Amino acid sequence: MLFTKMHGLGNAYVIFNQLAGDIENQDFPQLSRAISDVNFGIGADGIILICPSKKADFQMRIFNEDGSEAQNCGNGLRCVAKFLIDHKYATAPNFTIETLGGVVSVEVEVKEEQDVEYVTVDMGEPKLLKGMLPMEGDPSAATINEPHSFRGNVYDLTCLSMGNPHAIIFVEDAKKFPLEKVGPIIEHSRLFPERVNVGIVQVKSRQEIDYRVWERGSGITMACGTGACAAVVAATLNDLLDKFQPVTVHLPGGDLTIRWDEHGHVWKKGTAAYICHGEWGMDHIR
Amino acid sequence: MLFTKMHGLGNAYVIFNQLAGDIENQDFPQLSRAISDVNFGIGADGIILICPSKKADFQMRIFNEDGSEAQNCGNGLRCVAKFLIDHKYATAPNFTIETLGGVVSVEVEVKEEQDVEYVTVDMGEPKLLKGMLPMEGDPSAATINEPHSFRGNVYDLTCLSMGNPHAIIFVEDAKKFPLEKVGPIIEHSRLFPERVNVGIVQVKSRQEIDYRVWERGSGITMACGTGACAAVVAATLNDLLDKFQPVTVHLPGGDLTIRWDEHGHVWKKGTAAYICHGEWGMDHIR
Repeated sequence: MLFTKMHGLGNAYVIFNQLAGDIENQDFPQLSRAISDVNFGIGADGIILICPSKKADFQMRIFNEDGSEAQNCGNGLRCVAKFLIDHKYATAPNFTIETLGGVVSVEVEVKEEQDVEYVTVDMGEPKLLKGMLPMEGDPSAATINEPHSFRGNVYDLTCLSMGNPHAIIFVEDAKKFPLEKVGPIIEHSRLFPERVNVGIVQVKSRQEIDYRVWERGSGITMACGTGACAAVVAATLNDLLDKFQPVTVHLPGGDLTIRWDEHGHVWKKGTAAYICHGEWGMDHIR
Repeated sequence: MLFTKMHGLGNAYVIFNQLAGDIENQDFPQLSRAISDVNFGIGADGIILICPSKKADFQMRIFNEDGSEAQNCGNGLRCVAKFLIDHKYATAPNFTIETLGGVVSVEVEVKEEQDVEYVTVDMGEPKLLKGMLPMEGDPSAATINEPHSFRGNVYDLTCLSMGNPHAIIFVEDAKKFPLEKVGPIIEHSRLFPERVNVGIVQVKSRQEIDYRVWERGSGITMACGTGACAAVVAATLNDLLDKFQPVTVHLPGGDLTIRWDEHGHVWKKGTAAYICHGEWGMDHIR
């Protein structure tokens, strides 16, 4: 079957173009596990299917490397938007993509005879209430700098959903925080019945933050687009950033520019790139 | 540039066919680091170049994921042998491949109209003397169950070269041994001026062992073909296995059958498989 591997800030996905019928209907969780394995498969953070949609111009389905289906992924969405423009499926610079987390608007900077470099995605409005994450507790209350204890350690959590649920922790030094240990403990805590992504934020100035993420179902990744948005919203709610201004978010895989606008929408601008394309799963290859 | 990703027991390499001129002469260590990175590249344990040879029928060059050039790799060699037969470069079932560790004979089970499944490789004679690994100490002495202290812990090492140098440790439980901690300490010990691969062996019977490896330059991998040979030689030297008999070696990536024959040669039989093939490093992909 034909595939394209792309990445947004080092968050890498193997993309199947179902608009061209790249693969037959099958056990996609199993396929994602097999393809994401770097030893026996191609190696990626998961797979993405680009499909026709009845609700939007296109549909995107994302499966993590553990086989679970993701509601949305900003980095993956940027790859899909670039793919759709470069391959001439999308002909206008503004179009919509259906995800499990809802329908998303994208804006692509299209230049004559050039591939797409930057994609800006309307990530929608953050959902701040516990009931919308979901998170245990009063379903109509927000979680802003709320202390919770995990195996004897107390962390102040700010929690919100950007399609995916995120728990954000502010720290003095993002690089030194033991995310590989704390991430899975919070992810699987009974506070979050559908698990959660865990983000670490170090505020550098009122327009600049460092951000690292433990992704639900994937572990530590180079970048998580919805998480970068959640980090900016969480930092703004805690009055650590200027309102309505573009904020530079430094992730291990590169930078994103996030703006939480006057209408409550979060806009995310960043790059997307091809890695390779080819054929997978053949018995022979002559 | 065109590539084929293959694996032998989960030891995965991106292969470039220089017989067809897949890639131009360039900084191969840098290319191997870029391609092996699963976030920004294809993702593998390294790259292999299949080249013409003046000393043998073909030449194989292997670069690890850290860019260092390997002397030999049994799993990679099996992939190369399968590739050469399947693509009709090799027309007889017996041929020779030049490696940095010397010229190697391979035997391939060829069936009409079928791709190769099993490849047997003559891994040559083990080099047992310290001077040939190299290892500090009397260059004309072998290292058989010799105690050495590393940061306060004493391990009994049996050391030999199968083209690559290996230090083998016998343990009660291979799965529980903290190889990710001990491996890099021994690899970078001053005992081994050119570093060393570190193997852990648990003897199950006189024809069966479990084996795990920390590979010089790559870390823990699913399988190391030269290491499996070294493990059988080391266990035989310690009279833990029957002489001249085929020994089943269980690696995390699968099984190999190793025989140290009456003439001192080590023969290794195992599978090799394609994962995908495609094109890498294009600016655009339409």
